[in-house]
Amino acid sequence: MSEAAAALLGGVTDGFNTVLGTEYVELTADLVVLRCPVTPQLMQPHGIVHGGVYCSLGETAVSIGGSIWLGDRGRVVGVANHTNFLRATREGVLHVRATPVHRGRSQQLWRHEVADEAGKLVAVGEVRLANLDPVAGS
Amino acid sequence: MSEAAAALLGGVTDGFNTVLGTEYVELTADLVVLRCPVTPQLMQPHGIVHGGVYCSLGETAVSIGGSIWLGDRGRVVGVANHTNFLRATREGVLHVRATPVHRGRSQQLWRHEVADEAGKLVAVGEVRLANLDPVAGS
Amino acid sequence: MSEAAAALLGGVTDGFNTVLGTEYVELTADLVVLRCPVTPQLMQPHGIVHGGVYCSLGETAVSIGGSIWLGDRGRVVGVANHTNFLRATREGVLHVRATPVHRGRSQQLWRHEVADEAGKLVAVGEVRLANLDPVAGS
Amino acid sequence: MSEAAAALLGGVTDGFNTVLGTEYVELTADLVVLRCPVTPQLMQPHGIVHGGVYCSLGETAVSIGGSIWLGDRGRVVGVANHTNFLRATREGVLHVRATPVHRGRSQQLWRHEVADEAGKLVAVGEVRLANLDPVAGS
Repeated sequence: MSEAAAALLGGVTDGFNTVLGTEYVELTADLVVLRCPVTPQLMQPHGIVHGGVYCSLGETAVSIGGSIWLGDRGRVVGVANHTNFLRATREGVLHVRATPVHRGRSQQLWRHEVADEAGKLVAVGEVRLANLDPVAGS
Repeated sequence: MSEAAAALLGGVTDGFNTVLGTEYVELTADLVVLRCPVTPQLMQPHGIVHGGVYCSLGETAVSIGGSIWLGDRGRVVGVANHTNFLRATREGVLHVRATPVHRGRSQQLWRHEVADEAGKLVAVGEVRLANLDPVAGS
Repeated sequence: MSEAAAALLGGVTDGFNTVLGTEYVELTADLVVLRCPVTPQLMQPHGIVHGGVYCSLGETAVSIGGSIWLGDRGRVVGVANHTNFLRATREGVLHVRATPVHRGRSQQLWRHEVADEAGKLVAVGEVRLANLDPVAGS
Repeated sequence: MSEAAAALLGGVTDGFNTVLGTEYVELTADLVVLRCPVTPQLMQPHGIVHGGVYCSLGETAVSIGGSIWLGDRGRVVGVANHTNFLRATREGVLHVRATPVHRGRSQQLWRHEVADEAGKLVAVGEVRLANLDPVAGS
């Protein structure tokens, strides 16, 4: 794991990703892979995974990838998250992949995919990041 | 609170909305209002609310509103969630509102807005729901 | 009509908006209103208005509004266009309205609505603009 | 070219795609490829291709692919179009590709990509289609 990824993970060890149960499989500037075991606390009332979980996993994956790519040139902040829900999931482990579509001076666009344990796509989407100046803040 | 809303809430008392800390303020077919106190477990590593939280609150709010509107004619399932992040939030209570844009025979489109304690918009978006036949399942 | 709007319109008199048949009703920093008569050349094969027309009218309306608001502090460029199609249209005049959701230092988010002659919403969406530095270019 | 594609093209020979200058390269249920030469009438005031053109080409490509796939089981109608603009284009030929992400009983989700003559991506997006019953209409 790269130093940048390790530094990121240092900060990831609590907060919302702990709640989600996010597991970090591969963290690079060009590909981020996460895992997330389905548990009752990720579900909505009908016993399927809450749509917000897919959005959240995509947001985490893309933010990590975009941060690693940007490095010490600044920091990224999520601008928009657009996630499509393709299939319901009730059990097993979710597999999340984020890959870049476009990385410019001021913005990045990444795609995320979430597959179930059988490898079927259950959600796909994109997250837009703004690259903030190290000084300027948000 | 309507009977439909109460029935919904019966099922909402655990799962992802418990994790989020969602509080139910107003639940009708035309307007859903939620509250969500910001806690450390909703944050990403930089100490601001994780973007996925806004997506998730919108998803919950819209799903409740769409379910109440559809009633016993079927049940709704989220199809897509598109959320824009406008400002970072670090504390206070998030106020969520969902209102319908379009409600057709087979689909619904709703908007959600999240404001911070000062009333400033921090996220806006839309959720598309499919109206599933009571028999057909997803 | 403001000087900024008139200047914009000077440049709008040909190109894609001529093809669309866009008519300029109200052009301000906070509201843009356009009209567009439905003609056969705006249709797709089934005799209804092509979805791209709604996207295009929204893009035009938001770009004008964002440009007027930004003024000589820079120029805007469209970053993303997300348009939902609610009803098919076969005739009459389309009425387009764009209003701002968020206008920040580096980006703007606007909403657009398209109604048919009876005032029914036929499309709604949002366009994200980047505010480019007057010097930097895109 | 398949019979279905030829039938579609029969209806495409006028209307908005004539205005756009759409050229049909490959039309199948799994891949649609279009070309579109950049002309002054596709531009916005700053001399670059109008964002609505990318949306429109994506809409056309996806609608054709989704129609071919659905065949005589019904007809498709566009529900939402989400297009990101990555680079400005001033000349040359646009190359458009549409591929399916998810094709279900009642809905389809497709991606579209637009590249410039050098093969660089200039726009990417997705279009959601509803599969309408042959009888029911929209």
